Amino acid sequence: MPLTLTALKNIPFIRQGDNLADVILHSIEPNDVKLQDGDIFVLAQKVVSKAEGRMVNLADVEPSPRALELAGQTEKDARLVELMLQESSEVVRFRKGVIVVEHKLGFICANAGIDHSNVMGGGENGEFVLLLPKDPDESAKQIREQVEEKTGKQIGVMIIDSHGRAWRNGTVGICIGLSGIPALVDERGWQDLFGCTLIATVVGVADELAAAASLVMGQAAEGTPVVHVRGFPYPLGNGTLKEIIRPKEQDMFR
Amino acid sequence: MPLTLTALKNIPFIRQGDNLADVILHSIEPNDVKLQDGDIFVLAQKVVSKAEGRMVNLADVEPSPRALELAGQTEKDARLVELMLQESSEVVRFRKGVIVVEHKLGFICANAGIDHSNVMGGGENGEFVLLLPKDPDESAKQIREQVEEKTGKQIGVMIIDSHGRAWRNGTVGICIGLSGIPALVDERGWQDLFGCTLIATVVGVADELAAAASLVMGQAAEGTPVVHVRGFPYPLGNGTLKEIIRPKEQDMFR
Repeated sequence: MPLTLTALKNIPFIRQGDNLADVILHSIEPNDVKLQDGDIFVLAQKVVSKAEGRMVNLADVEPSPRALELAGQTEKDARLVELMLQESSEVVRFRKGVIVVEHKLGFICANAGIDHSNVMGGGENGEFVLLLPKDPDESAKQIREQVEEKTGKQIGVMIIDSHGRAWRNGTVGICIGLSGIPALVDERGWQDLFGCTLIATVVGVADELAAAASLVMGQAAEGTPVVHVRGFPYPLGNGTLKEIIRPKEQDMFR
Repeated sequence: MPLTLTALKNIPFIRQGDNLADVILHSIEPNDVKLQDGDIFVLAQKVVSKAEGRMVNLADVEPSPRALELAGQTEKDARLVELMLQESSEVVRFRKGVIVVEHKLGFICANAGIDHSNVMGGGENGEFVLLLPKDPDESAKQIREQVEEKTGKQIGVMIIDSHGRAWRNGTVGICIGLSGIPALVDERGWQDLFGCTLIATVVGVADELAAAASLVMGQAAEGTPVVHVRGFPYPLGNGTLKEIIRPKEQDMFR
């Protein structure tokens, strides 16, 4: 079976309190998707964060002395830097325009994943930014369980964001939360074509799927934050974000 | 149009001198693919390297003093380390079992991309390993031009490998060479849903596609090193590997 990724059209603008399982279920029929066991929905972080009320008005943020200092060093908005510090466990690198942190969720990323784009803002009400979901694995699980309950199908749900890489230009989609999908597939011990044992291959299948979904989602004005996936080539499983995060003691580059 | 990725079945075992354009063209009909403008073929590095005769018999390799020293420090085969040094411009990190280099092609990767698995070897003839193609952009261009000439269709060709990441477990497919495909899509200056200008988004679309193709290719004994892609959501373009490599002077983590 081929791997097929379809960006669902006509997903409405998401507001705090919206039920994303319902949003998905309402959108699949107009998109001619007939749900099957093994299908996966990939959601942009942005819609999950919006539904969970993770918008913050910068006007309400009081920068700490440390945020003021780091904002000066990086030429960034001190209120935004304050939020980055609150969302992080460690500042890993900084330079003008960029702060790389270990996010409280465990991964290394720029600007603590805080997002300006596609967030309603400006005008009289202030300038809003969007924090990442508090527990994206749990968010994915809740959506998965609700969709499964209402359809009787066994599915997977993944939440993705776009990250830069240390040594390559361009952002790629990566998994920040998942439910019902394996995070890694460990091929160590499998035989290759010549019967040699593979010794070092653990495949980041969740991140590979995240990149694929990101490609069809687009970044800017497309407004297609949900992707339907059919033909994921591994059995559904029970991955967690924690499995994907390299433990700090194995980090060669921090 | 959805993004559809199909691993072509029945790709024969590739030997030095094989014409990969012919291999692809012979395989598409049995796989029920009718080529269209805008289609892309993604090839595993392994088959390109094999066709180009990049197999090396470790019995023929004489380790230098530096290779012997690094092999001792990392507990690796000194002949393999010698090849890694020959393929690299710089050793970036090493520890027991792993050497991270800047490959001569420009990217940072483990073990200089030298591959043991799925390489015919062992027995009386020695132990063979496979180096990366010498100029993967050029390899991709030659395959693309031949397929285009024989079919009259405008297509893209990409060569991928699997890389580890600095802070995440599991390998993901990444692009090491491309022709007829954009490497990056620069969305800076585009408007988001609310008319705000996106300021920092350059998307690594080639790497996102590489990850997607890697997912359907599998790693071990599947033997599906060529993937047909339909529905790539950007116009075909003229990307190069060089665009994807972050210049050393912008590297925050070396």
